[in-house]
Amino acid sequence: MAMTETARTAPDHGVVDGAPSVPPPLALTGSAPGLSAAEEARTLVAATNVAALATLTADGGPWASLVTYGAFDDGAPVMCLSQLAEHGRNLAGDPRASVVITQVDGPADPLAAARVTLAGRAERAADAATLADARAVHLASVPAASSYVDFSDFSLWILRVDRVRWVGGYGRMDSVSGKAYAAAAPDPVAINAATAIAHLNEDHADALLVIAQALGGYPDATTATCSGLDRLGIDLALRTPRGRAPARVAFSAALTDSSQLRAATVELTHRARAAADPL
Amino acid sequence: MAMTETARTAPDHGVVDGAPSVPPPLALTGSAPGLSAAEEARTLVAATNVAALATLTADGGPWASLVTYGAFDDGAPVMCLSQLAEHGRNLAGDPRASVVITQVDGPADPLAAARVTLAGRAERAADAATLADARAVHLASVPAASSYVDFSDFSLWILRVDRVRWVGGYGRMDSVSGKAYAAAAPDPVAINAATAIAHLNEDHADALLVIAQALGGYPDATTATCSGLDRLGIDLALRTPRGRAPARVAFSAALTDSSQLRAATVELTHRARAAADPL
Repeated sequence: MAMTETARTAPDHGVVDGAPSVPPPLALTGSAPGLSAAEEARTLVAATNVAALATLTADGGPWASLVTYGAFDDGAPVMCLSQLAEHGRNLAGDPRASVVITQVDGPADPLAAARVTLAGRAERAADAATLADARAVHLASVPAASSYVDFSDFSLWILRVDRVRWVGGYGRMDSVSGKAYAAAAPDPVAINAATAIAHLNEDHADALLVIAQALGGYPDATTATCSGLDRLGIDLALRTPRGRAPARVAFSAALTDSSQLRAATVELTHRARAAADPL
Repeated sequence: MAMTETARTAPDHGVVDGAPSVPPPLALTGSAPGLSAAEEARTLVAATNVAALATLTADGGPWASLVTYGAFDDGAPVMCLSQLAEHGRNLAGDPRASVVITQVDGPADPLAAARVTLAGRAERAADAATLADARAVHLASVPAASSYVDFSDFSLWILRVDRVRWVGGYGRMDSVSGKAYAAAAPDPVAINAATAIAHLNEDHADALLVIAQALGGYPDATTATCSGLDRLGIDLALRTPRGRAPARVAFSAALTDSSQLRAATVELTHRARAAADPL
C-alpha cells in the first residue's frame, strides 16, 4: 500500500527480530488514494458468482460449503439452495450466515489475493415481488441455475449483510459496516481488470518499472509488476535490494470506464519518463 | 455417474413436472466402479492448498474466511493463522471448525465442480514434535508461509476431521466418516489429471465420442467431453438428443501412476472402435 493508506495497514505482527516486514519508500510521492474498503468489497462481490458459505449445524457447529450467487443492487448476495443439502437445512434452522468471496484470477500466492467476508442473516425470499427480483438476480449471475431454480426443494436466500471484513492481500485490510457496504458501488475499472493487468505485465514491464521508480517512491526498484488497477490508480508489486514492497500511483484523474485505461497508463508512463529524465 | 453408482446418487429433487433430470443409458455396460467418496475427498484435499474456513464468532455466529493449508498423511489440514485475524481468535474461543475445498481447474459451471467439506475440531500444535511436523507439512504446501510462520502471533492449527461431505458435482455426493477419510489415500492419477483432461478434450473428441457410444451405454451420444480421470477409469459428459448425461468407462486394469494414462486411453479407444465396428 502507499504511505497515505495507513488507515488500512494491519497491526504489526509480532515480529521476532524486530525488523519491519516491508522496506519503506525512499522518495516522497504525492497522495495516491485508493478505493474505500467498501468499494473494494463491492467490487470483489460483483466480479464473480462463487462463494464459500458458513452456516450453523443443528448443534451450533460451523459448516463450510460451496455456493453460487448473484447480488442485489445493495450488494446482498442471493443464493439458491436445496433443502436436501446440509447448508439449506442449516439456514432453515438458524439464519445466521457468512460468505467469503475471493478475487478471480488473483496472484499465485493465495494469501496475496483479495477476499471479503460478509456476515449477516439469510432471509428466504417469500413474497412474490422479492422472489421475482431474487430469481432474476440469481439467474443473471448463474445461468445454469435455470435447470433447478424452480425445483420445489430449492429456495432463494438473500444474505442481509450486517458486517464486512475486506482483506486486500498481505497487510491491507479493513472492516466495513453493512450500511457502508450497501451504499458503495463496484469499481467499474477494477471489476474487469484481469486482462489489462496481464497485458501490462507481459508487454510493458519496462514502463511499470519507470513508473515505480519515478512516481512510486522506490527509485531502487529492480522489477515492478502490476497487481491491481482501479479507477483511481495502479498498484505495483516491487522488488528492491531491500526486499519486496508494494507501491501505488494515482492516475491524473479518476476514470469512469475501463475503456479509458489505456490512455491513463500511457499518460502515467510519459509522466514517469519525464520525471526520470527531465532533460 | 454410471448405472453401478446408485449408492452415490442424490435423493431426487422435487421435480415440478415429474420428468427425470438425466436420460438413462440405452445399452447395458459392464461395471465401471469409481473412487470411493473417501478417496475423492482425499484427492481434492491433496490437489491444492487453499480452503474456505468456517469458524464461530464470540456470539456463536458463523464466520467464513480464506486460508491456506498443507495436510498430514491422514488428510488432516494444517493451517497457519494469526491471532490478530478474526478466524484465529475464533478458533482460540471455540475449536469447532469446517473447511470447504474446491476442485482446481474445474468446469466453468461452479456447481459442476467437485468439492469437499471437512468438519471437526482444530487443535493448536503445541508439543515440539507435533509443532515441527505441522510446520514442515504446512511449509511444503505453502512455501510463502516461510515469511510469517515464525511470527509470534501465528499458530499452526490442525483440523482433526470428524465428518466429511463430498460432492462430486450435480447429483454425485456422499458422506464419509473421519475414520474412513483418514484411512483413504489421494488418487495418484486424479490428483494431476487437469492437463490430460484438457489434452483429451482438445485433440481427441472423436475418440471420446466413440468410447461413450460403444462402451458408455449411450449409443445416441452426439458429443462427449472428458470430465474426470482417475486410476480406475474415465468420466464423460455427454450430449444426447434426450438431454445431457454423464457416463463412466473403466480402464481394463487399475493404473498406479499418471504415466500409464496415455496407454490406458489408447487401449480404451481401440476397444471402443472394435466394439463399434466389429468387422
